Amino acid sequence: MAAAWMAHCGVNARIVDKRNTKIFCGQADGLQCRSLEIFDSLGFADRAWKEANHMIEICMWNPGNDGIIRRSDRIPDTIVGLSRFQQIVLQQGRIERFFLENIKKHSKDAIKVERGVLPESLEIDLSKVDDDAAYPVTVKLRTLNEEESTPPQAVNASKIPDGLFRSNLIRDDDEADLIKKAQDRAGASEIVHAKYVIGCDGARSWTRRALGFELDGEATDFIWGVMDIIPITDFPDIRMRCAIHSAENGSLMVIPRENKLVRLYIQLKEVAPDASGRADRSKITPELIFGAAQKILSPYKIEYEYCDWWTAYQIGQRVGTEYDAHGRVFLAGDAVHTHSPKAGQGMNVSMQDTYNLGWKVALAAKGIAKRNILNTYQSERRRVAQDLIEFDHRFSRLFSGRPAKDVLDEEGVSMEVFKDAFLKGNLFASGLSVDYGASNLVVKAGDSLKQGDGSKVLKSVASISEEDFKKRQALATGLPVGMRFNSFKVLNQACARPWHFQERLKADGRFRVVLFAGNILDASQKARVDKFCAALDAPEHFLRKATPTDAPNDSVIEVLTIHSAKRTDTELLRDFPDILHPFDSHTGWDYNKVYVDDESYHEGFGDAYKNYGVDKQRGCVVVVRPDQYVAWIGELEDFDDLQKYFEGCLVLDQPATNGVNGTNGTSLPVR
Amino acid sequence: MAAAWMAHCGVNARIVDKRNTKIFCGQADGLQCRSLEIFDSLGFADRAWKEANHMIEICMWNPGNDGIIRRSDRIPDTIVGLSRFQQIVLQQGRIERFFLENIKKHSKDAIKVERGVLPESLEIDLSKVDDDAAYPVTVKLRTLNEEESTPPQAVNASKIPDGLFRSNLIRDDDEADLIKKAQDRAGASEIVHAKYVIGCDGARSWTRRALGFELDGEATDFIWGVMDIIPITDFPDIRMRCAIHSAENGSLMVIPRENKLVRLYIQLKEVAPDASGRADRSKITPELIFGAAQKILSPYKIEYEYCDWWTAYQIGQRVGTEYDAHGRVFLAGDAVHTHSPKAGQGMNVSMQDTYNLGWKVALAAKGIAKRNILNTYQSERRRVAQDLIEFDHRFSRLFSGRPAKDVLDEEGVSMEVFKDAFLKGNLFASGLSVDYGASNLVVKAGDSLKQGDGSKVLKSVASISEEDFKKRQALATGLPVGMRFNSFKVLNQACARPWHFQERLKADGRFRVVLFAGNILDASQKARVDKFCAALDAPEHFLRKATPTDAPNDSVIEVLTIHSAKRTDTELLRDFPDILHPFDSHTGWDYNKVYVDDESYHEGFGDAYKNYGVDKQRGCVVVVRPDQYVAWIGELEDFDDLQKYFEGCLVLDQPATNGVNGTNGTSLPVR
Repeated sequence: MAAAWMAHCGVNARIVDKRNTKIFCGQADGLQCRSLEIFDSLGFADRAWKEANHMIEICMWNPGNDGIIRRSDRIPDTIVGLSRFQQIVLQQGRIERFFLENIKKHSKDAIKVERGVLPESLEIDLSKVDDDAAYPVTVKLRTLNEEESTPPQAVNASKIPDGLFRSNLIRDDDEADLIKKAQDRAGASEIVHAKYVIGCDGARSWTRRALGFELDGEATDFIWGVMDIIPITDFPDIRMRCAIHSAENGSLMVIPRENKLVRLYIQLKEVAPDASGRADRSKITPELIFGAAQKILSPYKIEYEYCDWWTAYQIGQRVGTEYDAHGRVFLAGDAVHTHSPKAGQGMNVSMQDTYNLGWKVALAAKGIAKRNILNTYQSERRRVAQDLIEFDHRFSRLFSGRPAKDVLDEEGVSMEVFKDAFLKGNLFASGLSVDYGASNLVVKAGDSLKQGDGSKVLKSVASISEEDFKKRQALATGLPVGMRFNSFKVLNQACARPWHFQERLKADGRFRVVLFAGNILDASQKARVDKFCAALDAPEHFLRKATPTDAPNDSVIEVLTIHSAKRTDTELLRDFPDILHPFDSHTGWDYNKVYVDDESYHEGFGDAYKNYGVDKQRGCVVVVRPDQYVAWIGELEDFDDLQKYFEGCLVLDQPATNGVNGTNGTSLPVR
Repeated sequence: MAAAWMAHCGVNARIVDKRNTKIFCGQADGLQCRSLEIFDSLGFADRAWKEANHMIEICMWNPGNDGIIRRSDRIPDTIVGLSRFQQIVLQQGRIERFFLENIKKHSKDAIKVERGVLPESLEIDLSKVDDDAAYPVTVKLRTLNEEESTPPQAVNASKIPDGLFRSNLIRDDDEADLIKKAQDRAGASEIVHAKYVIGCDGARSWTRRALGFELDGEATDFIWGVMDIIPITDFPDIRMRCAIHSAENGSLMVIPRENKLVRLYIQLKEVAPDASGRADRSKITPELIFGAAQKILSPYKIEYEYCDWWTAYQIGQRVGTEYDAHGRVFLAGDAVHTHSPKAGQGMNVSMQDTYNLGWKVALAAKGIAKRNILNTYQSERRRVAQDLIEFDHRFSRLFSGRPAKDVLDEEGVSMEVFKDAFLKGNLFASGLSVDYGASNLVVKAGDSLKQGDGSKVLKSVASISEEDFKKRQALATGLPVGMRFNSFKVLNQACARPWHFQERLKADGRFRVVLFAGNILDASQKARVDKFCAALDAPEHFLRKATPTDAPNDSVIEVLTIHSAKRTDTELLRDFPDILHPFDSHTGWDYNKVYVDDESYHEGFGDAYKNYGVDKQRGCVVVVRPDQYVAWIGELEDFDDLQKYFEGCLVLDQPATNGVNGTNGTSLPVR
């Protein structure tokens, strides 16, 4: 994900991975709504959507008075109306493939994963960390050979791949060994000088240890196994997501998957950690795990001929103490948060970490944004990890607990409480409840320390009082500042094609000013729009000053318009100022910047103004960050404040440059 | 398209093309609803949908009393509610790419286009044409070199590719020349023995001439130019599809395209055919064509810097006298129908020709179907061409005619009549009004000669009287026999996922029996379903007899079920006979065969029974051909007649075979 941002923003980058192989099976599989919205911003959500299994319904199974499991409830897997996407499942290998192909397609420098390459040392030159032009981080890389970079399998002769080498049941770190081996045979090494380094190297992160940072938290006694199989079973809900609590034999989760596969998460009551808190992994075999599943599912029968992958893990919750070393080296994903996998959060929250970080690093590296926006990464994302850990702590105990026999059974877990937690958890798990706090990237009232993880961020000079903020937020009640820009359908003014508005917010590193132009055919509203556009167009204001002098005016900040007049009464060239549909001497007017909230012929009515909570007559102005989060809301008359917003986070007075963050504005089709 | 069928059905095939290059620009661009449904059956509609420009609205521009053009009407480009797809535009090169990749993905024998290869002779051994095992067609192929296989360009030094070498303004056939050149230098040649040959070799088809068949019809005096440009213009509807009649300067059609391109079809009033009926092509240049466009669009200004491609053509309508030589050599596409391109029918109808033919040839070649089904190709598709020619004759004269000044101007074209023709034309142009006549593939009443092109086809032994047919058709009023199976959303019974039902009718060469099971929870209805399923399952009946003994039971005919009971009250394994969700000892039950007409969580209610016009209590049975056309309708009690249908077109008593028409039934995921 981090590399995808670099590719989309035209920043040179390298990725190294100590393992020599791509993932072909197993690992994570759930993709939440927000991840799919992110994939769409990169251009490949459709591929995942097409290949994946779509999980539609969750069935709850609990023991009756006779101790026999029965379906007690059905709830939708994704909350209805939350997003244009719903939760799907697809194995991690395919998702990594989509990323690799997307990075290749978008990167000028052909960024690719260098496999079997391991960092040996990392140093930060503190005298240079505040110098924009410097490369303060030095990393020594060592190239492994085939044998060294092949991960060991738990059962050597088995044809079934397992994921135990990545499991938290094993705590051996093999980097020192591997490097020694490579050194002994004088394997190739290399010194890299970098402006920024991002450690996405998993729960036993080498980068985190090199920085001396910790993971805080605790393990539980709960141990679970995971199997991807093609089941042969009479259990009726095997193609539904199921949460099954057996009376005495533990719990099981069913995740139906693509290609007839089903993933089973199986509680292992027969395996427990020893006094040191560690489980004996030699006891954990596919046979043991599957035997536990059969007991839980009884009286239903389950067998399999084909197993794709298996692993096991010990439930625990940990969060990194720091995400950021001197604004130059960052940690993301499992390197700074670990928890149980059953809510499908690991891959999603991890990708969302670097979706938050990548554009900030890219814009800082290019000199487009101020380096101090990087402080918001820890504040925004460590807070999400804290919330996740808290959620998982509660949820995993409810899942691993024995179901209560009756209301007097206080040790047992009430199935009503569990269902309620599941319902609430679904909103959290969708990734759409994330609400970033005040900073120089998000203009809202309140205490930025409390809104974030407690670390300090610079607040915007455009920041406002609680009262003023309420007024501003009231201009677009459906677009809460700090949350992702929700999507409704609007029509292109020039060609009447319906678009989900989020489809116009692509991950290309650009900020966007969304002008809700209101009723453009009303003379007084038109005068307001004209005045706003005149300010936007002025050479001394942010739009021109943030843009390199030799680049098209929409290279750094793109202005998009949604108006509320009737489409067929309105004409693009006649009714909208030029700045809203810029002219290019090679290719004419830009027909993709102005949209209308009107009925479509084939796809219904998006009712965007109503859904965004914006006044149809007067409209408003909304700033959207490159990662689609709402950053600022104001009236058309609040231009000075808007100017201050961009002064607070972007580097104005851009000089000319070559090849900055290209738009399609001036490029002719290439044959 | 023909090769795609061979790939999907596992039949060995070769494609040769005398030209050495793929198409990178120009040629056809419009994709109609039915073509997109077909692409979806092959698996790549989503790629076209994503890349294409979507045409939403047609704007009519006509001269007012002052002679100045004005927008007089807006109509939707695709009739609302007709299909789950709407018309889109994308250049032919991309579409050919999708086909090449799809063929590569699905063919065991890696079918690819052999470029620069030309047929030199074609012979049919009449003594062998009725022998199923024989290879009665002998073709001699000659391989060209680079120079020979490169098409000439009209303007040699021009950087802008033109399509004149394919235009009907040039009537030189260069095959004899090319073959002589290749013979003189002793270029490689090869003899191919084939069961079947399909000539898809364009308006000047070598195959058609080798068979001695003709194109019947006439040319007009209307000459039109075509340009793909990035326009720089103040014309307000340049991103709409426009039909523009100027007062005196001729007509113009605007087709907005992908990548900022716009295609202009421009009437050339300054160029006329000479006494021999041929236009002087040396006069036709991009400058002449664009000058005509500027005059028509005046008082609006239009210029361009970038032109992607251009060509010109003379309007005419011709249809082939015969489509089929001895049921062994077939002609398709422009080889048997030519007309004007503005209704976007050329590529679409041509692809639909081989979509009709390909599976018939494949199933006949494999011995699954009787060879006499091949007679239906000419009957079904030549009739479509006749209808197309008639449509185009009327439409192109209305388009090329001068607009009437007033009601007394009888020589002029009434703009009301033109608009009306456009509206009606949109249904025809969608490809969804095609209605195939009675034959051994389509069981309906009436005169098969009148329903087809006049050529003779075998009628089904299951054929019925007008009165009986009315009763049968009344069982599913939304599924007219002979027309394509319309698509509404249903839910998978096992996982609740919504599918457009057409998505389950993939182009894999299988016939389908769609069992509308009605209210399966009603005991008497359940008894009817059980009885039907018992007959279906019997070893002496068509399902088992049409299937090779060593192949899964759904290899030749797939049974799909849609029931109307409440999803959550119904259970797949409990409520439906095994034959409706077959068990496989390696992979368990099949969870993808039974669907329910019920509300979804996220995608509304398809209301399939209502839309298909089927009784919710009693249901009915519908046979769907491999190309998605409705073939037979009957009650659950009409099993004997259903049996007769399959006896009429399939080869029963199949022996064991290897690798026939695989289903996913027994295949494990391959890593």
